[in-house]
Amino acid sequence: MRAVDIIIRKRDGHALSRAEIDFFVAGIANGAWQDYQASALLMAIVLNGMSPAETSALTQAMLHSGKRVDLSDVPGVKVGKHSTGGVGDKVSIALAPIVAACGVVVPKMSGRGLGHTGGTLDKLESIPGFRIGLSIEEFKAVLRAVGTCMIGQTSSLAPADKTLYALRDVTGTVESLPLIAASIMSKKLAEDSSALVLDVKCGNGAFMKDAAKARGLAEAMTAIGGGAGVRTECVITAMEQPLGEAVGNALEIRECLALLAGRGPADAMSVVRALSSRMIALGGKAPDAESALPLVEKAVSSGAALDTFRRMVEAQGGDPRIVDDPNRLPSVGTVHVERAASAGYVSRMHALSIGRASISLGAGRDRVGDAVDHAVGLRVQAHVGDRVEAGQPILELHHRDGRGLDEALALCRDACAIAEDPVPRPPKVLDIVQ
Amino acid sequence: MRAVDIIIRKRDGHALSRAEIDFFVAGIANGAWQDYQASALLMAIVLNGMSPAETSALTQAMLHSGKRVDLSDVPGVKVGKHSTGGVGDKVSIALAPIVAACGVVVPKMSGRGLGHTGGTLDKLESIPGFRIGLSIEEFKAVLRAVGTCMIGQTSSLAPADKTLYALRDVTGTVESLPLIAASIMSKKLAEDSSALVLDVKCGNGAFMKDAAKARGLAEAMTAIGGGAGVRTECVITAMEQPLGEAVGNALEIRECLALLAGRGPADAMSVVRALSSRMIALGGKAPDAESALPLVEKAVSSGAALDTFRRMVEAQGGDPRIVDDPNRLPSVGTVHVERAASAGYVSRMHALSIGRASISLGAGRDRVGDAVDHAVGLRVQAHVGDRVEAGQPILELHHRDGRGLDEALALCRDACAIAEDPVPRPPKVLDIVQ
Repeated sequence: MRAVDIIIRKRDGHALSRAEIDFFVAGIANGAWQDYQASALLMAIVLNGMSPAETSALTQAMLHSGKRVDLSDVPGVKVGKHSTGGVGDKVSIALAPIVAACGVVVPKMSGRGLGHTGGTLDKLESIPGFRIGLSIEEFKAVLRAVGTCMIGQTSSLAPADKTLYALRDVTGTVESLPLIAASIMSKKLAEDSSALVLDVKCGNGAFMKDAAKARGLAEAMTAIGGGAGVRTECVITAMEQPLGEAVGNALEIRECLALLAGRGPADAMSVVRALSSRMIALGGKAPDAESALPLVEKAVSSGAALDTFRRMVEAQGGDPRIVDDPNRLPSVGTVHVERAASAGYVSRMHALSIGRASISLGAGRDRVGDAVDHAVGLRVQAHVGDRVEAGQPILELHHRDGRGLDEALALCRDACAIAEDPVPRPPKVLDIVQ
Repeated sequence: MRAVDIIIRKRDGHALSRAEIDFFVAGIANGAWQDYQASALLMAIVLNGMSPAETSALTQAMLHSGKRVDLSDVPGVKVGKHSTGGVGDKVSIALAPIVAACGVVVPKMSGRGLGHTGGTLDKLESIPGFRIGLSIEEFKAVLRAVGTCMIGQTSSLAPADKTLYALRDVTGTVESLPLIAASIMSKKLAEDSSALVLDVKCGNGAFMKDAAKARGLAEAMTAIGGGAGVRTECVITAMEQPLGEAVGNALEIRECLALLAGRGPADAMSVVRALSSRMIALGGKAPDAESALPLVEKAVSSGAALDTFRRMVEAQGGDPRIVDDPNRLPSVGTVHVERAASAGYVSRMHALSIGRASISLGAGRDRVGDAVDHAVGLRVQAHVGDRVEAGQPILELHHRDGRGLDEALALCRDACAIAEDPVPRPPKVLDIVQ
């Protein structure tokens, strides 16, 4: 078997066999493939696609390129969750304690933020002392004790995906549905959950810009999961405007505390509810997602969810006092308030621009390894459809001594529009794929 | 300007600007592009194509990546010739002395054989003492004295093409009409001819397997040449069966001597005539190709062409006595004669298989740098359409002590077929593009 022959087969529109795909993924590690051959094949895949069978084979090959977590000695049904990433997307952090409080184990391995989307790990690290680098044994101990634990993806999971992703990033081969689906699913399947719920974000602030592509990705991932014996459901949610109010690390943790206490923004809570109810049903604690909704409400209203979060923070070395006293989270005293220039209805709050503004302020990073400022960020105080009066605050920019403020303000002014006539409030949950 | 953005533009089906193409070709040399980025772009070009304007820009960028030969101090009109390569294609060696004898300067820079097609340089080196590695000053001196000279392409001509070709070869990105056209034309335009005649081979033994692709390549190259101010004409010729009788280095030089003396095989002579008459017309020695045909006949019948060849051989250090005594060329005493199994008409003499057979015998190479045996090869004694009787010799295999003979024989038996009913003789010249 020769690399060049496999490239030519895909170039000419043929499906690759499982053996050919295994040879490719193994070759990335053992040097049988040069990276210029891998990138040529990746481009041929971007342009000629992959069948569901090829996509599953690619996922399995990347999965088997590394270790799998073994959670068999953690009692209970484990249900994993993943989001394709958005602006203000703190859903995982609020949802995992709710689902765990309902008796379903939620092992959560996350990544860092890159580009305009934030990362769960960066948000958690804004909690003083919080450790995301637990060993697998520590991870399992917290899961046993608390029911949920949130750590960084270890580099031993699907290492071939990491190598390929780095290559895709610099060769214009990121935008391919089968490659994205295989990349996500190889890592999620390595985490040893019994079932998965995936939040596929759709809109200008998401990786998938339109509904058809989001649905295609959701269908591909659902099929891969099912083929691997892991029941997988996708919720397609809107990402045209930031989710909730807070964008930025500590600001988002504050919003998670509000959500867990039942006082969070309605749009973010609706997404938390849609995803957590499905996880509870997949975890066997309710016959279906709808029947699980009262369990979600009870976990919040009883304080059980907030208590679970407190215990998780403490078990991972974080300061649990932040739960009752959010002022212990890092913050800046310098806040610029942006106000509505005219009265009317918010017609636009462009997620991508707000995400870029948060990077300008220092809350995110454009390059792997850059440091983030946990205290800075934005609060979105008016969403699409909201009535505003002239001079009413619509955005808060939490900046550190003016750093990046001018650029962030320019992005924010570009992001917002106010119309004279009423604008409908767009739905957050767009579609379900199961 | 970033490499990844240019890759994405081509991936998404856009045309690249001249500046983007210049950046790409310069980046190959200066390291701004990694080879995995170059191969991703090449695959996107293979699958999404290039417009004529892009193809011309790519040609110019590769041309300007190196030095150009300057023939301005060689008097006379210079007309270049190139073949896309075939089996038994010795046309250049017979044609150049004919055209030069008619007063048109023919500067010929050639490559070595690779795969099933032979190379002009290997054939010439079967002449004892012949030097293909002249300096440009020596090259010009022979052109001034003899009117033609045949040397190897120097590595300073279009070096970017050399780098890209090596990458294309191992990444499945060879088969692209714009990339092939730009590769050929960047080198031909660097040779400083006033006009070009290109032999585009078409058939199983050629790079272009079908007439539509051959015509597409011919049109692309004619447009590139015209755009660069170098009038370019293409003759599309058949390569379903070997051209002429001899396949192999010294055997082909013998056939060239026969062609120059007017005693060569009719099919090879018809191609020599078609191409040399166009070169004479482009060189201003006849109003059109048809009017140039009598000049071709006269150059041969008068002995002027053969004499030009003798003087070229001598000027390049070769033994001129081979012209009158071809037995001075290397040869093997061991010849296997393959005979017709039945009476009938030859319906198939598969060029690719015969070419592969000549490699088996040692006449060619599969890898750059392999040595070739100048003495071995084949003589095809029956062409498609010929009547043969059972037991009549149809192929001679000139082998060195049986080396590769079994494999060559198997290929030859596969290559030939004899039908009961008459088979028409296919034409050699299929089309003209000008």
